[in-house]
Amino acid sequence: MTKHFHNQIESLKKKILHLTAMVEQSLTEAVRSVDERDVSLAVKVIAADESIDDFEVEVEEECLKTLALYQPVASDLRFIIAVLKMNNDLERIGDLALNIAQRAKTLAEYENEVSPINLKEMSKLTLSMVRKCTDALVALDADQAREVGAMDDEVDEMHKNAYLVTEAAIQKSPQKVAFFINVLGISRYLERIADHATNIAEDVVYLVEGTIIRHQSVF
Amino acid sequence: MTKHFHNQIESLKKKILHLTAMVEQSLTEAVRSVDERDVSLAVKVIAADESIDDFEVEVEEECLKTLALYQPVASDLRFIIAVLKMNNDLERIGDLALNIAQRAKTLAEYENEVSPINLKEMSKLTLSMVRKCTDALVALDADQAREVGAMDDEVDEMHKNAYLVTEAAIQKSPQKVAFFINVLGISRYLERIADHATNIAEDVVYLVEGTIIRHQSVF
Repeated sequence: MTKHFHNQIESLKKKILHLTAMVEQSLTEAVRSVDERDVSLAVKVIAADESIDDFEVEVEEECLKTLALYQPVASDLRFIIAVLKMNNDLERIGDLALNIAQRAKTLAEYENEVSPINLKEMSKLTLSMVRKCTDALVALDADQAREVGAMDDEVDEMHKNAYLVTEAAIQKSPQKVAFFINVLGISRYLERIADHATNIAEDVVYLVEGTIIRHQSVF
Repeated sequence: MTKHFHNQIESLKKKILHLTAMVEQSLTEAVRSVDERDVSLAVKVIAADESIDDFEVEVEEECLKTLALYQPVASDLRFIIAVLKMNNDLERIGDLALNIAQRAKTLAEYENEVSPINLKEMSKLTLSMVRKCTDALVALDADQAREVGAMDDEVDEMHKNAYLVTEAAIQKSPQKVAFFINVLGISRYLERIADHATNIAEDVVYLVEGTIIRHQSVF
């Protein structure tokens, strides 16, 4: 690996960590805006999505430039492709944070209603998955990436449970169906964020160990 | 472009068309299994997902091999990256078809219930988006890709409407909440499929015109 190429990889790593930090902040604030029925915070999250989008485009351009300029092969090539895919997933996580903030705006109308789903716990777990899969990529740590898969099972379980709880709550108070469906929507967004983190983690394992664990139940 | 590289590109195009055909079939059958409450067809769709997953891995490997072997630059490089990203989106569309088939299994318990949402119309539109964005990539046709964006707005509108219709249906018959929520879930899966098709279409426009229309409202 030439020194220039090495520097380029380091620059890409920094950029992907920066994008992760941006997405993390959006997600944290989106969930807080739901929790505290804080419409102005939700509006802030929605506005911040543009910077995330711009930064995603910048990272992709840099990946393409790196491929064209250094024409890496083998594991170096795989690394750039992993960054490219992760970049895509992170941007979509940003979109989902925006979706959560949009729901927060709707939910603000229901000031006194209590969510039957523990969204705080679910979002905490989801956030730590996002952090862990980026850390795993930067450190090329397959073990850390594998942990993300186990956490995903937990989030899936939480979302399944959220379904049942919501169903029961609607049957009890059908006049509040709009409130409950919106809360369930947030649970679904969190579950999708967890899926994106899992995609990233699977790519990291492949990158490090050269085996495709995607689509395998062993993960 | 060398003859070998040209052949390689043609082979990749064929593969991505084949993957699209596989995904289209899964999606068509998944929606039919919902419509006709056909559990055995749903089971078939769920089983077929493995072949889609395997084929996605194969296409990605071929893209990486092409990058390493031919070290393309400029528009050739962009084309390979577009195939790589589209491959990813197609596989996720396959996953969503599987999710629809899973719902079909649940919905089979409600033999006599009629869906308040016109899923057939929505899935028809979504399917034609998937077809159109692949055709646009293979033909490098930005105009065709742009049409996908307009269709996405229509699907979004349908999904928003599905929400309202479901909410009203639940309020009227809260004891059937599980049925209605499952039907709404299918509408959401279709909306996500449309989003993936839009992602692909945006990449095609970028590939052809060199401008990033992602994240722009002009699309």
